[in-house]
Amino acid sequence: MNATPIGLRQLEGGGVTSAAGFKAGGIHAGFRKKTPDRLDLALVEADEVCSAAGTFTTNVFCAAPVIVSRENLGEGCAGTARAVVVNSGNANAATGDVGLETARRECQIVSEAVGCAAEDVLVASTGVIGQHLPLEPFETGVPALRAKISAEGGAEAARAIMTTDTVPKECAVAYESADPAYAGTTFTVGGMCKGSGMIMPNMATMIAVVTTDAPVAPAALRAALLAAVQRSFNKVTVDSDTSTNDTCFALASGAAAPGAAPIVQGTPAYDELAAAVLEVCTQLARKIAVDGEGATRLVTVTVEGAADDADADLAARTVANSPLVKTAIYGHDCNWGRIAAALGKSGARFSQRDVSIDIMGLPVCREGLTVPFDEDEALRRFEEPEITIWADLGAGCAATTVWTCDFTHEYVTINGDYRT
Amino acid sequence: MNATPIGLRQLEGGGVTSAAGFKAGGIHAGFRKKTPDRLDLALVEADEVCSAAGTFTTNVFCAAPVIVSRENLGEGCAGTARAVVVNSGNANAATGDVGLETARRECQIVSEAVGCAAEDVLVASTGVIGQHLPLEPFETGVPALRAKISAEGGAEAARAIMTTDTVPKECAVAYESADPAYAGTTFTVGGMCKGSGMIMPNMATMIAVVTTDAPVAPAALRAALLAAVQRSFNKVTVDSDTSTNDTCFALASGAAAPGAAPIVQGTPAYDELAAAVLEVCTQLARKIAVDGEGATRLVTVTVEGAADDADADLAARTVANSPLVKTAIYGHDCNWGRIAAALGKSGARFSQRDVSIDIMGLPVCREGLTVPFDEDEALRRFEEPEITIWADLGAGCAATTVWTCDFTHEYVTINGDYRT
Repeated sequence: MNATPIGLRQLEGGGVTSAAGFKAGGIHAGFRKKTPDRLDLALVEADEVCSAAGTFTTNVFCAAPVIVSRENLGEGCAGTARAVVVNSGNANAATGDVGLETARRECQIVSEAVGCAAEDVLVASTGVIGQHLPLEPFETGVPALRAKISAEGGAEAARAIMTTDTVPKECAVAYESADPAYAGTTFTVGGMCKGSGMIMPNMATMIAVVTTDAPVAPAALRAALLAAVQRSFNKVTVDSDTSTNDTCFALASGAAAPGAAPIVQGTPAYDELAAAVLEVCTQLARKIAVDGEGATRLVTVTVEGAADDADADLAARTVANSPLVKTAIYGHDCNWGRIAAALGKSGARFSQRDVSIDIMGLPVCREGLTVPFDEDEALRRFEEPEITIWADLGAGCAATTVWTCDFTHEYVTINGDYRT
Repeated sequence: MNATPIGLRQLEGGGVTSAAGFKAGGIHAGFRKKTPDRLDLALVEADEVCSAAGTFTTNVFCAAPVIVSRENLGEGCAGTARAVVVNSGNANAATGDVGLETARRECQIVSEAVGCAAEDVLVASTGVIGQHLPLEPFETGVPALRAKISAEGGAEAARAIMTTDTVPKECAVAYESADPAYAGTTFTVGGMCKGSGMIMPNMATMIAVVTTDAPVAPAALRAALLAAVQRSFNKVTVDSDTSTNDTCFALASGAAAPGAAPIVQGTPAYDELAAAVLEVCTQLARKIAVDGEGATRLVTVTVEGAADDADADLAARTVANSPLVKTAIYGHDCNWGRIAAALGKSGARFSQRDVSIDIMGLPVCREGLTVPFDEDEALRRFEEPEITIWADLGAGCAATTVWTCDFTHEYVTINGDYRT
């Protein structure tokens, strides 16, 4: 258990069922016909209907499950839910009215198995796009899966939502509330996610489910989730592509404090919860970047001294998305010129004479000019699993961090080798 | 000689010295110490001081020669010039005050050799950034180069500005003016350019020089150049990175119609000239995309039915910059889902139900839904040297075309293989 500055304890091996009041599991339901031993359907179920919130892709080509889940959450994407069902192998995207009907039917199938209203079921899909999602695997798979979900099933659920991911992604943290209203109560926040080729539909959507046993009103849960997503998942870029299916759900069971009043914004309890949700989302987001298709390195790009938040994001994101920066990192090339050029084209406001750049802690640029550095030392530092790029624009006080990965031959192989 | 709809004749083997009144050449001056047989200094000289215009990178980290050339052209980047000097091997970027002093001294050296004012010299540099550009190769090279330039030297100049380019890039067209003011006069527009890894500083800037023997006022020349650049070079994207050094110059000698009044905007002669400048810039731009680092295919992305020009550009550019689209083309994968997702995340306004997509003329998406197509036929069409992607957003009447190339293992090798 690691202690964090805000008093969060890491729960080793934790995930989407670490918080009290949730069961989960995974099964092979038949979406992936060619790999019958691979899990392809996950269910996360709350013991009771509970607060729920979601954030979704802004892609115009958003998928049917995104539309249906948004409808089911209702106004402001904050409402209630009992279950989240996620299939892999088919994204149910670009499937028109048939796809919407399929997603709604999914909700009915799950609601019948669980015993809840169809509107309290949230759905997400990931996999190939433009193909109709079959209902039959839900019809047979959901009842079988429901029979086997458990409070220890988080890891299985995390495996069932993988596509090109090479590892399942889950984590959980716990903290004791210092808010007098919940004095001494231990709250847990956990989650799972998938994403690899990233932020792109063909087998590579980002989907995350975060659970907590804190009692939280839907609007407060949504606020905490949105704030966390903006500083975590939305700061990950593997290849600059945004999926049709990107979805992040949060469910709050309240099981850690039965009968307690729901946490609302503007209270110490809300701030604690928001910090815990941010921590879980950040850990999950970094796991996505590390597992970027073909990646050999996690790359952390921090921009400071920007004129405002938008400029900080623009500058960091442009560096993180630059193929030339990402191939240079793959090549262990301490090429700050490529970073400078990316900053310069980003649209962020600054003067080149005010720019400082460090790579792996080595100062390589000051006042916009080259700083001599030890090439051998730089090569040694590139052996680390995490590569850090830091830039100060000298234009203000705003800062941000974006995560990405290097750009490798393997990425091209994964995404380009369909030749027959 | 190909006839074009606007009556332009292609001049086979033409280039920057095809228009009357220009001499050019290239020499090994010593910027590329390791390759003593490689040309690294080009000079384009007009017989007399003539109208000149320029467009430049918007990168905040713009290089010293960009700043000095902008100063020399004066107000509105439209003025006069006698000579353009371009070195390869060193970009003179991120070099601070020393770099500016070097660029100004370059102008003096050329002005002394040519016999003109230093303000009538335009400079451009391409190559590594962050290193000081030595003056000595200019001091010895410029007089030697001046002594050998000729009206047949365009091809040599085009070779001297290459960096990672695999082929020199030049073209020229001629047309007979139908404007009564220049009745029957034949005007020529030619040019050369370089650019490959593209639009990025490390050995890969875009530099172009366009010449014409039409008599044109500086403001009209600048207007024609800017309009052409926006529809040609600015529509090329190899890796979405914008160089610190991107520069395009136009010079108009007037030698084809001595004593004639300069062409001004709003006349038939201007429209003819603008069309010829656009044709030359478009041909050069396509040569850059074809020669993108590691490219095996030219990719043409046309978006129609956009709500406005900005949306058309956003949508086409987002598709052209998507690593997932570009690797799919490399893999001969007719993956329209990646194109749809790129359109959807672009920010362009449309409804997915109104979208049509063709790949290589094959309808693959209508009304946002899959259209079955012959996979074997698609694979055959991917053997063509030029891959065409067409999308109609069904949201308006604006359209544009963007050129790019596929994304290959070789790109990663070129940009990533610095490992020791």
